[in-house]
Amino acid sequence: MAVNYQSLAVKGVQALSPYQPGKPIEELARELGLNPAEIIKLASNENPLGPSKLALAAARKALDELCLYPDGNGFDLKQALANRFGVAMNQITLGNGSNDVLEVIARCFADSDSEVVFSQYAFAVYPIVTQAIGARGIAVPAKEWGHDLDAMSAAITERTKLVFVANPNNPTGTVHRADAIEAFLDRVPEQVLVVLDEAYCEYLTGEEYPDGIKLLGRYPNLIVCRTFSKAWGLAALRVGYSLSSPEIADVLNRVRQPFNVDSVALAAATAVLNDEAYLNRSREVNTAGLRQLADGFDRMGLPYIPSAGNFIAVEVGERAAGIYQSLLAHGVIVRPVAGYGMPRHLRVSVGLPEENERFLDALAQSLVAAGQGG
Amino acid sequence: MAVNYQSLAVKGVQALSPYQPGKPIEELARELGLNPAEIIKLASNENPLGPSKLALAAARKALDELCLYPDGNGFDLKQALANRFGVAMNQITLGNGSNDVLEVIARCFADSDSEVVFSQYAFAVYPIVTQAIGARGIAVPAKEWGHDLDAMSAAITERTKLVFVANPNNPTGTVHRADAIEAFLDRVPEQVLVVLDEAYCEYLTGEEYPDGIKLLGRYPNLIVCRTFSKAWGLAALRVGYSLSSPEIADVLNRVRQPFNVDSVALAAATAVLNDEAYLNRSREVNTAGLRQLADGFDRMGLPYIPSAGNFIAVEVGERAAGIYQSLLAHGVIVRPVAGYGMPRHLRVSVGLPEENERFLDALAQSLVAAGQGG
Repeated sequence: MAVNYQSLAVKGVQALSPYQPGKPIEELARELGLNPAEIIKLASNENPLGPSKLALAAARKALDELCLYPDGNGFDLKQALANRFGVAMNQITLGNGSNDVLEVIARCFADSDSEVVFSQYAFAVYPIVTQAIGARGIAVPAKEWGHDLDAMSAAITERTKLVFVANPNNPTGTVHRADAIEAFLDRVPEQVLVVLDEAYCEYLTGEEYPDGIKLLGRYPNLIVCRTFSKAWGLAALRVGYSLSSPEIADVLNRVRQPFNVDSVALAAATAVLNDEAYLNRSREVNTAGLRQLADGFDRMGLPYIPSAGNFIAVEVGERAAGIYQSLLAHGVIVRPVAGYGMPRHLRVSVGLPEENERFLDALAQSLVAAGQGG
Repeated sequence: MAVNYQSLAVKGVQALSPYQPGKPIEELARELGLNPAEIIKLASNENPLGPSKLALAAARKALDELCLYPDGNGFDLKQALANRFGVAMNQITLGNGSNDVLEVIARCFADSDSEVVFSQYAFAVYPIVTQAIGARGIAVPAKEWGHDLDAMSAAITERTKLVFVANPNNPTGTVHRADAIEAFLDRVPEQVLVVLDEAYCEYLTGEEYPDGIKLLGRYPNLIVCRTFSKAWGLAALRVGYSLSSPEIADVLNRVRQPFNVDSVALAAATAVLNDEAYLNRSREVNTAGLRQLADGFDRMGLPYIPSAGNFIAVEVGERAAGIYQSLLAHGVIVRPVAGYGMPRHLRVSVGLPEENERFLDALAQSLVAAGQGG
């Protein structure tokens, strides 16, 4: 009898459903015969500004050396990060996007005997990396769409190795203040690692929000993860990183693939750290766009979850799947979040003002077509 | 008492020594105060030609969209590979270099109860990925520096999940003919997966060598891995892939990170597949360079392992570490292979004719300084 090769996979992998990315523009164009230039994608929390000129110039220069392996130690980028954040280079672990760092952390510190705690409605990569290593994921019910930090610390058992906390959280956009995060960290036993995923932290404005890096000295069990894919505008190139104690970084760097970040990515990320103007503009465009979208939802009478990220989850009701399809037919790609247990919501990323407007128009028309709005 | 965070790592990771890449040019320049332009690096089996113009143009164009996530499905690249090799797109798994694919394969099909078979002197990533998941690596003693395929099939037990076969092998350059590989595959039980790593196969010239892709139909337990980092000249960008049955590819694609290959890499790799002239030139320069290096070693009376790759392992004797250092002082970076259990050898990558010459000159001088040559 023929061998069933899928049944040979390790147990966690057999039950694994892969991450569902936002639909790429080219894919929709192929499927619907649309002109790619007429499609707008507000589905993947990408920066709508287009790339930083400094990053672009550095990336272009790096193309001269396509035949050479990247610097596996990422010296220049680590030095730039260390300077920016006042940490030592040996506290840094670079990743092929923060997805890579999140996965490496799980593989280093958890196995099939472990439990990993995260929140309901949290970033899909947490349960996926947990499942892939055969660990038990504990999804703690959310509170008003956000992390219930009290319940999360109460969910820690002797088997718990890791807790993932996204602040702000994707796809809900909820955020905790510094005092809440610190109170949570005070309650977590020191042998349990806390991964504070700050992928969207650059969009936060306000003294009341935590900066995980400032907490590293007080909490040796803390790992802070960040990315260049959002406010820094380099999603195409896949660069993320974690900051932690040197001891933890040493472990992560053993498992990290030696050339996990490529040469173009290293060059662009190093350069963009000098482009403070780009970061500020990312933040301004985002703040204005969030307001524009919220105002539009208010006009249509649609509830939404107030967001601290570069996206917003709007409640369109039980016909969300149909409205998503209708938006696609209008050439507007947003993100269905039924897979996150939010079947009544759609997540829309903040675009440029004209993109937000086009989305709001298409949404209004789709609601009418679905018989839900007016 | 303070927690020892390294002791919290999973067992395999605690004992893990990370991969040691070749020394980057910039690093040597920093260390010795040399001008980077005067250093030559023959340490990482990189293509000395510089990038394909088609690849470069495609990479440059892809920079326009740095803010957008890559196509997680790699549609265009998979289509180009499928056309080239006459396979279906669903047989392909893309990786961040073939390192990524090798790691994903191990994580999908082996765990702490498994054994993984590979050869002594084989590519360091096989034992590393095996160790990281806590599986037991079985390093089968080599035969004349190459894989002892009989002994490898005899080493398979009920716990064996994977066998890694590198053909040609790095760092020894040894290669098996098609009949030997097929006879080996005939002996491997069908529930044991064979990973045929053909990273260097594009350098092979001769009908007697196997093309793993042609064997996929006969051996459903076969996974063929290849890379764009060598003959295709895209090491900086990290693109590798595996070809297998659709069933196995489906498993691998569940664990693969959704954006493991970045946009610039996807574009360049897709384009370079149209540059047959570049591939042919890579092969020609390599064949001539191997001859040039072998002739030089013959003149110096140094034994070497005949190589089918784009590198050659030369036996310089017990002072190999000192000769490596002396070459560095001459601005020539090669690769020590003591970590592979080959303390008397150095591995040198094939460069351009003038680079090979400069290396041979520096080697002759270093041997004299070490009192070993004349």
